[in-house]
Amino acid sequence: MTKPLRIGIAGLGTVGAGTLSIIEAHGKLLAARCGREFHVTAVSARDRTRDRGVDLSAVRWFDNAVELAADSEIDVVLELIGGSDGIAKEVVETALANGKHVVTANKALLAHHGTQLARAAEDARVYLGYEAAVAGGIPVIKSLREGLGGNAIDRVYGILNGTCNYILTAMRESGRDFSEVLEEAQALGYAEADPSFDVDGVDAAHKLAILTALAFGCEVDFDSVSVEGIREISALDIAYAEELGYRIKLLGIAQQSEGAVLQRVHPCMVAKETPIANVEGVFNAVVAEGDFVGRILSEGAGAGAGPTASAVVADMMDIARGSTLPTFAIPAAQLAPSKGTSMAAHVSSHYVRLMVTDRPGVIADVAAALRDEEISMEAMLQRGHAPGEPVPVVITTHATTQQHIASALQRIEAMEAVLEPPRMIRIESL
Amino acid sequence: MTKPLRIGIAGLGTVGAGTLSIIEAHGKLLAARCGREFHVTAVSARDRTRDRGVDLSAVRWFDNAVELAADSEIDVVLELIGGSDGIAKEVVETALANGKHVVTANKALLAHHGTQLARAAEDARVYLGYEAAVAGGIPVIKSLREGLGGNAIDRVYGILNGTCNYILTAMRESGRDFSEVLEEAQALGYAEADPSFDVDGVDAAHKLAILTALAFGCEVDFDSVSVEGIREISALDIAYAEELGYRIKLLGIAQQSEGAVLQRVHPCMVAKETPIANVEGVFNAVVAEGDFVGRILSEGAGAGAGPTASAVVADMMDIARGSTLPTFAIPAAQLAPSKGTSMAAHVSSHYVRLMVTDRPGVIADVAAALRDEEISMEAMLQRGHAPGEPVPVVITTHATTQQHIASALQRIEAMEAVLEPPRMIRIESL
Repeated sequence: MTKPLRIGIAGLGTVGAGTLSIIEAHGKLLAARCGREFHVTAVSARDRTRDRGVDLSAVRWFDNAVELAADSEIDVVLELIGGSDGIAKEVVETALANGKHVVTANKALLAHHGTQLARAAEDARVYLGYEAAVAGGIPVIKSLREGLGGNAIDRVYGILNGTCNYILTAMRESGRDFSEVLEEAQALGYAEADPSFDVDGVDAAHKLAILTALAFGCEVDFDSVSVEGIREISALDIAYAEELGYRIKLLGIAQQSEGAVLQRVHPCMVAKETPIANVEGVFNAVVAEGDFVGRILSEGAGAGAGPTASAVVADMMDIARGSTLPTFAIPAAQLAPSKGTSMAAHVSSHYVRLMVTDRPGVIADVAAALRDEEISMEAMLQRGHAPGEPVPVVITTHATTQQHIASALQRIEAMEAVLEPPRMIRIESL
Repeated sequence: MTKPLRIGIAGLGTVGAGTLSIIEAHGKLLAARCGREFHVTAVSARDRTRDRGVDLSAVRWFDNAVELAADSEIDVVLELIGGSDGIAKEVVETALANGKHVVTANKALLAHHGTQLARAAEDARVYLGYEAAVAGGIPVIKSLREGLGGNAIDRVYGILNGTCNYILTAMRESGRDFSEVLEEAQALGYAEADPSFDVDGVDAAHKLAILTALAFGCEVDFDSVSVEGIREISALDIAYAEELGYRIKLLGIAQQSEGAVLQRVHPCMVAKETPIANVEGVFNAVVAEGDFVGRILSEGAGAGAGPTASAVVADMMDIARGSTLPTFAIPAAQLAPSKGTSMAAHVSSHYVRLMVTDRPGVIADVAAALRDEEISMEAMLQRGHAPGEPVPVVITTHATTQQHIASALQRIEAMEAVLEPPRMIRIESL
């Protein structure tokens, strides 16, 4: 048997402790599967005294994670600190510069500095693993890079944030509004005290930027991701979606579009019968559409100690087995430069909900605004109410550009009988 | 760049032609992803003159596939002939004996001779790839062996035969009976002229035996798989399943059970809300339950030229990149010997449908038979009919062993008022 893989862990939070648990529980299994033993030889964390349920007495302790990353008796550094810059970035850069393999669960870091880190890993001829950074325990990075490697990918999309999916599922099941369900999610530990990274779509956008680079062979370009979160989704819209045969999901979607890759994160209405519509609660799912393989969906836990640590260990197994794959499937120098893309020309159908005063002529005015932007209506729902009362009017459109729908909505919003800014949710054909 | 990977293809049917198409369409992409070019240097097939949509004029042609397998100018042999023995086996054995990597889509071969072939591959220090043998384009072998490698697998199960899933889906959607839908599936090319490998569960059992070896680190043991097909499923049972909140799926299931692995293929009733219940038509899906990662489901096309060839190419990419993983994740010598297991002690809930003469006392007799076997009823459905007419009686039971339910059904079948052999379908908790 080859000599043991010497592991240094920077960061002993949930994922770090989970990783220690797997190595402890499955040491023999890992050795059988990799032909090498896994030895955790060094750790670094803020609090040395905290009980993590694992015996760390024989392990060297570094107060400074960057020193751990440079230590000569470590083969692979696990960066489980988090954050796009600062200490996490320093740890990864130091490890790579010292010729050590790196495994990280840090999506923000890769979304912001992925291309540069891929180059550094290649220069040092080491492995930069990040399976845990996207969709937790689902082996989506491996699937895209290896399992579906014989395909050109036409589109990749997914439910990439479990917090948002939990909130949207709970809203639908209980009929309650966003703020109430968010509070509950926070109490249950499914949402952070400051939920904005999750509910505003930033976390999903980080993951999408990574998937895009991998699937399409281009540089990581987080800045080009168009991002909208789920704060504006109301119980009313979820009820209407149900009535129209849709579910509302926050999706991250990347697809080829006129020579560039359009990356977008926003709430979508997806037909109830589609597999992704049925991925509920905190689960994540990723769909890859390959030109030969067709549609492959993978679903599982997107967060949590066990699933995330499972992904970290999978990366270490690749390292132990001697894998030397480029970070984003092809050599970093061959990654296509990022091209700015814009949503303006993106074409889709739309759900639009207005709150209007129920009086003659309103619908005619709204219909005229849509017609003038060459938007054709697919359906309209308006229920009878007492005249003069505010009533919801729901319209679904046929395919149109973002430009057209935005202009039409601007004009509609200015109408006197329209009482609130119109709500718009894109209807996604999957 | 490393020198090209020289490929010899034995068998140019659907999958062979699909593989040629991918190599032709994505030659540059594959080279970028693997650092090596893919060169098809030799082929062998029955009909030399058939147009396969690809230019084969520069490729050496072997009339004898076994000679191709021994050729010194080939690095990897694709065995795409099929069949558990005969020429396919000879090709694979010859290739391995000559130190060549092998990629095969042949589930029957691996189900019957997997352990022995794994040993041969290891002895020759070559790679035996079989991603295409299970669930077509879904990278399930890679996921189990690598992506989820940090887990002990508790259970693995799936919809492993697209033909059966198509038939069951069409039966449900149309309300028609098995034979009628089978004929339609044959006309559409979804079922073979001799459908028994598919509809009797043999094909699913082949795949399950392979998944079992990989997931649980044991020798391939096809003979221990308990197999039942879908011929006995009636439109009436599908309608009752729907009413009770279930879908009927042919599943292959392997799980730890008292120190051995119980492998079974049979129709199951699964709750409509479960992800696998919503995998419809010709699609396949595989679920792996790991002790750390939880439940991971992957869904996609389980057959067809593109998906299957995608899996063949993925294996070749692993070879081109220098992977040397053992066939069933751990060295063949460490695979646990197969232990015969039996369904007798297996515990599950059951759906039972009887056709009885509607007269007083029948239900009391049936209930007594169940009680005497210590089977408790969960629900019973009986609709009013004209007295004296045959009526269906549907019973769902709480968990009980196969032994108990079999004894009870035997006794029930012998009752005068019971007009047909009872139908039993296991209710699976997923």
